[in-house]
Amino acid sequence: MSTAYQQLTATFLRLSRFGHLSAIAGWDMQTMMPPAGSRVRGEALAELSVLQHEILTDKRTAALLDEAEQASLNDVERANLLEMRRAWQQAALLPASLVEAKSIAGSRCEHAWRQQRPANDWQGFAANLKEVVKLSREEAAMRADANGGSRYDALLDLFEPGMNSAQLDQTFGDLKTWLPDLLQRVQEKQAQQPIDFPLGPFAVEGQRQLGLAVMKQLGFDFNAGRLDVSAHPFCGGVPEDVRITTRYSENEFLSALMGVIHETGHARYEQNLPKQWPGQPVALARSTAIHESQSLFMEMQLGRSAPFLQLILPQIKAQLGDQPALDADNYIRLTQRVKSSLIRVDADEVSYPAHVILRYEIERALIEGEIEVDDIPAMWDEKMMAYLNLDTRGNYRDGCMQDIHWTDGAFGYFPTYTLGAMYAAQLFQAVKRALPQLDSLIQSGDLQPIFDWLQQNIWQHGSRFSTQQLMVNATGEPLNPHWFRQHLETRYLGA
Amino acid sequence: MSTAYQQLTATFLRLSRFGHLSAIAGWDMQTMMPPAGSRVRGEALAELSVLQHEILTDKRTAALLDEAEQASLNDVERANLLEMRRAWQQAALLPASLVEAKSIAGSRCEHAWRQQRPANDWQGFAANLKEVVKLSREEAAMRADANGGSRYDALLDLFEPGMNSAQLDQTFGDLKTWLPDLLQRVQEKQAQQPIDFPLGPFAVEGQRQLGLAVMKQLGFDFNAGRLDVSAHPFCGGVPEDVRITTRYSENEFLSALMGVIHETGHARYEQNLPKQWPGQPVALARSTAIHESQSLFMEMQLGRSAPFLQLILPQIKAQLGDQPALDADNYIRLTQRVKSSLIRVDADEVSYPAHVILRYEIERALIEGEIEVDDIPAMWDEKMMAYLNLDTRGNYRDGCMQDIHWTDGAFGYFPTYTLGAMYAAQLFQAVKRALPQLDSLIQSGDLQPIFDWLQQNIWQHGSRFSTQQLMVNATGEPLNPHWFRQHLETRYLGA
Repeated sequence: MSTAYQQLTATFLRLSRFGHLSAIAGWDMQTMMPPAGSRVRGEALAELSVLQHEILTDKRTAALLDEAEQASLNDVERANLLEMRRAWQQAALLPASLVEAKSIAGSRCEHAWRQQRPANDWQGFAANLKEVVKLSREEAAMRADANGGSRYDALLDLFEPGMNSAQLDQTFGDLKTWLPDLLQRVQEKQAQQPIDFPLGPFAVEGQRQLGLAVMKQLGFDFNAGRLDVSAHPFCGGVPEDVRITTRYSENEFLSALMGVIHETGHARYEQNLPKQWPGQPVALARSTAIHESQSLFMEMQLGRSAPFLQLILPQIKAQLGDQPALDADNYIRLTQRVKSSLIRVDADEVSYPAHVILRYEIERALIEGEIEVDDIPAMWDEKMMAYLNLDTRGNYRDGCMQDIHWTDGAFGYFPTYTLGAMYAAQLFQAVKRALPQLDSLIQSGDLQPIFDWLQQNIWQHGSRFSTQQLMVNATGEPLNPHWFRQHLETRYLGA
Repeated sequence: MSTAYQQLTATFLRLSRFGHLSAIAGWDMQTMMPPAGSRVRGEALAELSVLQHEILTDKRTAALLDEAEQASLNDVERANLLEMRRAWQQAALLPASLVEAKSIAGSRCEHAWRQQRPANDWQGFAANLKEVVKLSREEAAMRADANGGSRYDALLDLFEPGMNSAQLDQTFGDLKTWLPDLLQRVQEKQAQQPIDFPLGPFAVEGQRQLGLAVMKQLGFDFNAGRLDVSAHPFCGGVPEDVRITTRYSENEFLSALMGVIHETGHARYEQNLPKQWPGQPVALARSTAIHESQSLFMEMQLGRSAPFLQLILPQIKAQLGDQPALDADNYIRLTQRVKSSLIRVDADEVSYPAHVILRYEIERALIEGEIEVDDIPAMWDEKMMAYLNLDTRGNYRDGCMQDIHWTDGAFGYFPTYTLGAMYAAQLFQAVKRALPQLDSLIQSGDLQPIFDWLQQNIWQHGSRFSTQQLMVNATGEPLNPHWFRQHLETRYLGA
């Protein structure tokens, strides 16, 4: 007779197999599916999702969790059980009626938003968003009652277990003391250095070949993954078969290229997650912010560093032809260009955190009930002026209506972008300490020691340790924003 | 409270949604998946298949079937219930141990066959095949006990409900009286007409554009389907999103083109199945042979007819360039070339039935216990000589080891190829009667009246009628091989 723990591992293996099908069908929906497949695909995925929820929240699962928690387990099993309990609780805590109401309100809000955003229709959007916020507050209250902590913390925990708003307030508070000033100084400095923009068209096939070459350079395993095209770039699939996407513009190639490098960072993490615990939660990526740290490590720390940019410049010229704007100095300036702008997804790494902090402050106040939906635009305008020196009054479209996150109630997600950027800087700093000749390694194309370090310190551990423990083990300290600041000052001010 | 019938429709809708995911993940496996995804994909699909089997064979399903069969239902509901009962019985009849043993023996036999076939290793192959045959005989005996009829009939019924070996013996017996002679006369006639072969290379992208253009001509709905590449061409996906594949050779373009036309025939049937009974078995294609009749209608009846070949010749030249071998007369001779050869899948439509009849006679004798696996090669050699005048002695690789069907126990499938060819001829003859100006319609590219006829007579009915009733409704008579003979004699002897 198998133990409770063994029965749980069988259940989670089964769940992971259904998750595999969901991941592939989801990838297909974004990359391959013709329009007429949409309705039945949605229904099929929803049916599978109901099944997964039923299996996870089955009474037997709860009883097995209770029983296994009393058993004698080794460290990995204990960590796995913790993640199982987490998954079970997240699924079982909310009444089905609330889950359904949230899903309907989120779909309605998002669907209408697609028209309302281009029409700059804040009033229309706000009406739907109020329902989403109301239900998210209910969810937050239930989760907070069960777990302790504030309501916003309860939502944050869904994406970033172990993080809370007290720590975010401190960390982001620190950033706010130096970031606006840094941003202004960098822009003043860069204003002295003229930039030439490369002239297209850049053929899509050439850009694709370039992306593939750089993925290869970054160690992407093409035996266990693919590169395709989608409207919104993402990393999907399963660890044994990781599917990343990008989108091409013939006018400009750097966005697609940097996007590919970013998704390759996500992909290498997935491809190198531990294989010895198949289908178990402990074998999954640690958290949203740690995942983002891997993509930003590749894109921002490594990918936009001068030695890496020099390394791949010949490949760019080979695929897209040479031209004066691809002079090495100009091309590095181009790739490291900083400019405050209205849109978060287009932001450089210096101004990006300002976008995130602003959203964090608004969504936290919203969930805690300190403000209402109607208060958002004024708060947005004020903070955009304070952090980015930009006037957004009346421009809802490129202001508080620009992101998709709030439309379906994903409150608590935004902070993970900047946490990821800070973790990435801290990890890269640790790599520098471990590999003193790092710049010349990179410039010579010998990236394997970097990957070995990531494998050793991050990838192979899955969710075996808490985020904090993982960072302490890897870098000798918990999250320390100092390294992010030092990175930005060094790269952009040469300090 | 919903009725038993309503509850069954809900169950089958749910099953169809899981079937959707299985179809898309299966398509992905053949077209997109990198090698390392193979093991986990297999496990995920097997897990889903176990789930589907459990839902279908649940005791409640059996009770609901019994109850619904006593209820007052309209014709469509009655037909749907019949198909539900069929699906349930096919799944529930065999003990799980036999299903598993068959699956294991089939996988082992097929896996080893991939090496054994190129090595011409009949002895090695026979050892595995004996186990497959033993288990298929057990399956056939159980199914025959439950349904009446012979053992072979019980397997045939899995693919072609309503067909039996008595009718096959009669139909194929008739074919055997005239086919070998016709084959010889056609080859003698064609030997008088020299043929030029087009000279490659033919760029894959040009072939793909050509395939897409011809699919469009044939009414394929690209809003609800795709064309991709796979090692073995197939038609997959779901009716709302039909995925067809082909494979390209740069040396020769007609195989890929005719393959695309063939799969488009399957696809148009799927795309035009009835939409008003979502997820119900009555909305599915009638049978394997009727499906094949739609692909052969497009490929053989329409696609290789002189007016259609003339219609698409300019598209061929536009994509692949002109050359002397694309002179209209030569090109039609090329496309209608008849030549006895060892390999079924490469056979023209005149010699193809000989390959099928031979396999039918061997597999029927094998399942009925009249011969053993060791008797296959001698029987193969004798029949190849009698029907196709070809010597296969000692050549197992291109003889009785060439097909994949027997390796995993799909006995009863082969006859559907030739039944499909005969249905296609009979349907095309009915279209001719309905559209007296058919040839000039085709040559002018006005194919819509043909599609309307197929929609009216075949596609829209799904599985509402038995195969025989469907054919009687469409053509005024049940299966009549006369039309197939007339088609071959007219096209190939100008009789």
